[in-house]
Amino acid sequence: MDEWELIASIRRSIANRADVLVGIGDDVAVLAPRGSATLATVDMLIEGIHFDLDHCSPRDVGMKAMSVNLSDIAAMAGEPLAALVAVGLPDRQPAQLANELFEGLRSQAEAHGVALVGGDTNRSISGLVVSVTLLGSPTGRGPVLRKGATPGDALCVTGALGYSLDGRHLRFSPRVREAQLLHRDYSLHAMLDVSDGLGSDLFHLLDESGVGATIDADAIPVRRDSPLFGVDARDPLDHALHDGEDFELLFSLPKDDARRLIAAQPLGIPVSIVGEITAEPGGRIRHAGRIESLPRGGYRHQWS
Amino acid sequence: MDEWELIASIRRSIANRADVLVGIGDDVAVLAPRGSATLATVDMLIEGIHFDLDHCSPRDVGMKAMSVNLSDIAAMAGEPLAALVAVGLPDRQPAQLANELFEGLRSQAEAHGVALVGGDTNRSISGLVVSVTLLGSPTGRGPVLRKGATPGDALCVTGALGYSLDGRHLRFSPRVREAQLLHRDYSLHAMLDVSDGLGSDLFHLLDESGVGATIDADAIPVRRDSPLFGVDARDPLDHALHDGEDFELLFSLPKDDARRLIAAQPLGIPVSIVGEITAEPGGRIRHAGRIESLPRGGYRHQWS
Repeated sequence: MDEWELIASIRRSIANRADVLVGIGDDVAVLAPRGSATLATVDMLIEGIHFDLDHCSPRDVGMKAMSVNLSDIAAMAGEPLAALVAVGLPDRQPAQLANELFEGLRSQAEAHGVALVGGDTNRSISGLVVSVTLLGSPTGRGPVLRKGATPGDALCVTGALGYSLDGRHLRFSPRVREAQLLHRDYSLHAMLDVSDGLGSDLFHLLDESGVGATIDADAIPVRRDSPLFGVDARDPLDHALHDGEDFELLFSLPKDDARRLIAAQPLGIPVSIVGEITAEPGGRIRHAGRIESLPRGGYRHQWS
Repeated sequence: MDEWELIASIRRSIANRADVLVGIGDDVAVLAPRGSATLATVDMLIEGIHFDLDHCSPRDVGMKAMSVNLSDIAAMAGEPLAALVAVGLPDRQPAQLANELFEGLRSQAEAHGVALVGGDTNRSISGLVVSVTLLGSPTGRGPVLRKGATPGDALCVTGALGYSLDGRHLRFSPRVREAQLLHRDYSLHAMLDVSDGLGSDLFHLLDESGVGATIDADAIPVRRDSPLFGVDARDPLDHALHDGEDFELLFSLPKDDARRLIAAQPLGIPVSIVGEITAEPGGRIRHAGRIESLPRGGYRHQWS
């Protein structure tokens, strides 16, 4: 299958959607306007940096490339709509690689109602590179930003954190529907997705909101069911704070709302209160009865 | 300058725009709705495939990465609005490379009123990779598609073709304003930008429109002022048809409109009638009094 056939096959596989006025096959995609604004995000995965094809399949890479973008749209409580995919394909078996990659991209796109509306396929003399741009629209009362956390808010997180290297960093469920449900039924003040680790991403929320936070070590949900749990000597709390690639939602909301949310547990995955927003700036952690400063940590690789 | 400082510097350099509700610094960019639809396109440039840093500067690469996308929006007679940039930076002098790359991206973005609203910076173990996604909105009577050419239409091209390897493939002017003017004052039936060469891109327009065309060899504007003109033994017509990376507009419109356009020459760059659309499918070229079949040619690398 050459590039032309691959594109034709992708074009055929895309269901007709009323909001995709022009999909693959013209100079640019044309999308019908929807909602009060357009959400747009991009993430690039590079072989040798973000993945190693000796340890994962091209399908995994495709799924992850779509999922990290879905997670960003989820962080706004948005509705994902359409994706554009740019790839660089190495010369070793490019068609098979492309097919498997697109299988992964497509499976996650279809699971979330995303139309593949355009892209750009290229040769690469080095490794596989895939860049996904995802467009969406806000839901309910508009996008939930990182800014907006208010002193007195409860700080909550979905699911459990840490040990993502057990394979979860490739095969995770972006919290798209969970975010929409939270946004519909609770007064979310600020939200983001945990990609660099709670210990790092918390500061993005605090910085943008101009507030501080105290979190409770005992309240942080650790992924104890991971096969990697207990395998090394590192403190599980350290794993939960700094491993990153959890792709869970971290959000703040009024305490009354948070209590109602914790009582209802409406998501099918656990939601935990992990701390509270303070007027005093900076991050702190309550641990064994003492409050310590939480150092800024985790990876630094994203700017949208 | 580390990645954080680079992003902060880019963030500062972006002028406040009313249609960018949330720019760099949150999970996704949020754009105000504008016009009747959203246009979206992506192009990726890979070191060693699309450029060689021994023969061009990172600034050239940045300019080109933005310009090829601007040319795609131009091909729809669209208005470019906002860009997202994903980059992979090799370990050799990544900050200097990134700065120069963004200088090029920014200069073309600013020249066309495009806001840089998000992105993703990464390390790359191989070469420099840059993927630009450009969003825009249609103008006038909506986007001008590849589909719509009608038998009897004149086929026109802006500027002159061929010899783009003289440096023009890096430093060209995407025909954004020209396309908008044409769309406003003439009844464009179908349009695309010539990236693979007239001899190749013509067939995209014919295929999508379900028509054929006869072009006139003598009417094709050749870039005779290129320093590469006459340097090799290849027929200049062959250069004009197949070199590619001209980034001129190829469009069809009613003959009366075309005559009015040729008489007015309103673009500041020449516009030529190069042939006509026929009901009979296929491409033909009139050359020295004879009509021959025009073989499908040129590069095949784009699918949006």
